[in-house]
Amino acid sequence: MKKIKGGVCAAQGFKANGVHCGIRKNKTKRDLTLIVSNVRCAAACVYTQNLVKGAPILVTKKHVADGYAQAIVCNSGNANTCNADGEAIAEGMCALVEKHTGIAASDVVVASTGVIGQPLSLEPIASGMSELAAGLGDHSDFAAQGIMTTDTVDKQIAYSFELDGKECRIGAIGKGVGMINPNMATMLIFVTTDAAISPAMLQKALSDDVKDSFNMVSVDGDTSTNDMVCVLASGLAGNSRIEGAGKDFTAFKRALNKVTTHLCRMIAKDGEGATKLLECKVSGAKSKRAAKTVAKSVIKSSLFKAAMFGADANWGRVLCAIGYAGADVDIKKVDVSFRSRAGELEVCRGGSGVAFSEETAKKVLSEDEIEILISLNDGRGKAVAWGCDLTYDYVKINGDYRT
Amino acid sequence: MKKIKGGVCAAQGFKANGVHCGIRKNKTKRDLTLIVSNVRCAAACVYTQNLVKGAPILVTKKHVADGYAQAIVCNSGNANTCNADGEAIAEGMCALVEKHTGIAASDVVVASTGVIGQPLSLEPIASGMSELAAGLGDHSDFAAQGIMTTDTVDKQIAYSFELDGKECRIGAIGKGVGMINPNMATMLIFVTTDAAISPAMLQKALSDDVKDSFNMVSVDGDTSTNDMVCVLASGLAGNSRIEGAGKDFTAFKRALNKVTTHLCRMIAKDGEGATKLLECKVSGAKSKRAAKTVAKSVIKSSLFKAAMFGADANWGRVLCAIGYAGADVDIKKVDVSFRSRAGELEVCRGGSGVAFSEETAKKVLSEDEIEILISLNDGRGKAVAWGCDLTYDYVKINGDYRT
Repeated sequence: MKKIKGGVCAAQGFKANGVHCGIRKNKTKRDLTLIVSNVRCAAACVYTQNLVKGAPILVTKKHVADGYAQAIVCNSGNANTCNADGEAIAEGMCALVEKHTGIAASDVVVASTGVIGQPLSLEPIASGMSELAAGLGDHSDFAAQGIMTTDTVDKQIAYSFELDGKECRIGAIGKGVGMINPNMATMLIFVTTDAAISPAMLQKALSDDVKDSFNMVSVDGDTSTNDMVCVLASGLAGNSRIEGAGKDFTAFKRALNKVTTHLCRMIAKDGEGATKLLECKVSGAKSKRAAKTVAKSVIKSSLFKAAMFGADANWGRVLCAIGYAGADVDIKKVDVSFRSRAGELEVCRGGSGVAFSEETAKKVLSEDEIEILISLNDGRGKAVAWGCDLTYDYVKINGDYRT
Repeated sequence: MKKIKGGVCAAQGFKANGVHCGIRKNKTKRDLTLIVSNVRCAAACVYTQNLVKGAPILVTKKHVADGYAQAIVCNSGNANTCNADGEAIAEGMCALVEKHTGIAASDVVVASTGVIGQPLSLEPIASGMSELAAGLGDHSDFAAQGIMTTDTVDKQIAYSFELDGKECRIGAIGKGVGMINPNMATMLIFVTTDAAISPAMLQKALSDDVKDSFNMVSVDGDTSTNDMVCVLASGLAGNSRIEGAGKDFTAFKRALNKVTTHLCRMIAKDGEGATKLLECKVSGAKSKRAAKTVAKSVIKSSLFKAAMFGADANWGRVLCAIGYAGADVDIKKVDVSFRSRAGELEVCRGGSGVAFSEETAKKVLSEDEIEILISLNDGRGKAVAWGCDLTYDYVKINGDYRT
């Protein structure tokens, strides 16, 4: 597998663009993104489990019900959620795509991200669409920028891999920095590939993958109303189409996971106000489920996140979060270490503290990527969760987000 | 029912004191508290459900297993948790109480609060105990100060009420500002009363009460390892002893609830870094359980808490937190208003936004006590939860708590 350039345009058959159409006040910020394929694609999606669902999600569900789609349109600056006319607006966005590209509105995936509960007007979208469609090309970066809200960096990645002797490509863009605690799906992630795969197997690959990737990320414990992960597979790589389990399906899943895990790390590291990526690796759990529960609990603890911001090796907060996680754990067997580029520091063995140098601790925890290694010594269950520190800037960003 | 002075010393038969013995570095901070009764008391406790339990909790459970106790000793500055010798130290604290007061060590409730995972030495406790015991008197304030950690105010309250024609008194002290998300018990709360009541009925009253009081408070979503609520009932008021359900038991429960609810509000308002008390009142839920789930979810949302800090009427975050709460809610029926001393503001009706004046919103949300009123319009279930805003100071306090 090889990292390549091009993000969402790396796979054969895909073009993308992003423009500023006027939904966001700041004119330097792109706020409308379009991704199109030359051919109809097998399509798979997973969505937020929040009972409050953005109108675009309801419309997308209808459009991909047959397993196929050919374009993705997404705006930032407004979530089009909790609005009485939300579904009509989302359908209107798809109709505009049809008007300017010829792709049937019913083959368009639509998404929105931004403030909840503010009416979204079609006007800026209608006026921006011709520039957006006319400029379609190798512009994954513009597309990635068009879906950003408080993200500080655009998020894209692509890999090439081999299936059935044919070179395939898979790439993605993503956004998400706050209201992130996915439950069966997450933030906005658009993946494109030229591998040939049936809609059913594509959906299976995606549904399996999110359990260990996006569902293991938390920035602030708030599950968004507009989360969506969508994969489009054009089939243009020419491999023999994946119709069931087997070697090719495994290879495809591995490539998909490479892309999704990369985005998980990028999203956690760019968490609102974050200065540090926290990667919690749990091993030795009674079950995989228990390992995931423990990893998520540690990564979500406000107290632990604040301690990491302060580079304070307050491991008692790790133990505390393990204890209230709700998993079956024998606290007397728990070992904990912190690790970063600067070294590794053992802080707890068998549930009790180990003497350590505060100076070393500061050094290890002052890096911008910290691993929290937890051995439960009670089985073979393993899991990884990604999060970030809790900082002044998280409060600042969210104390006045609307205005 | 009448509010009276005296806190934990208001009830007949109780004396208290608090001193600085040297566990905390700051010499102006009391760090050791003792409450004693003239007579053996019916005793009831509830404890944290965290799998990591402070050593004092394990010792206290043994000491109150027979339903009786006569003293409470508590230190701040060190949680005596995750220490290999923790139980021996906690037993040592009880033995010191016996030595200086004559009350059997097995009748002593012991508690600790502070940093987890740092060895606690008996030395300062042994040297402070004679001053502490010699100074026992009407010193609820000293006792309340001796259990504070990052609390900014000491927390005490007392009421008088009538049982069986006799005047009774009930009072309490409490601490807790961070690591607060009680699960079956909470922070440290010590309640004393002179009502006569059997240990079994006292336990029933307390266990019922915490479900609607302390278990509905959240400061940061972290369930502490050392939470404990303890009630001692001396029986000195002379009422005929409560042995079962009935009018007197109901009156006692009402008085207990008055005290616990008062402390819930004090604890939430003094949440680490908090500038505002948030009181979320949910009505019209399909069940009481659903109402509680929704109220807790809103009060715990980091995004909503940050918006309240910024006096930003971002009601979409309330809807979002209702949506992911996990309760059976019909979002299309949800109404939301904000209320404070400055007025009431409707922001959402039937799941969609209502136009409102941003100026009025700022005025309503700039007060220091905010009610979030949620009508689910789908049944008769009701609940109240208490929380606080998320501020820069929460991050500051917890970024470097140990050092």
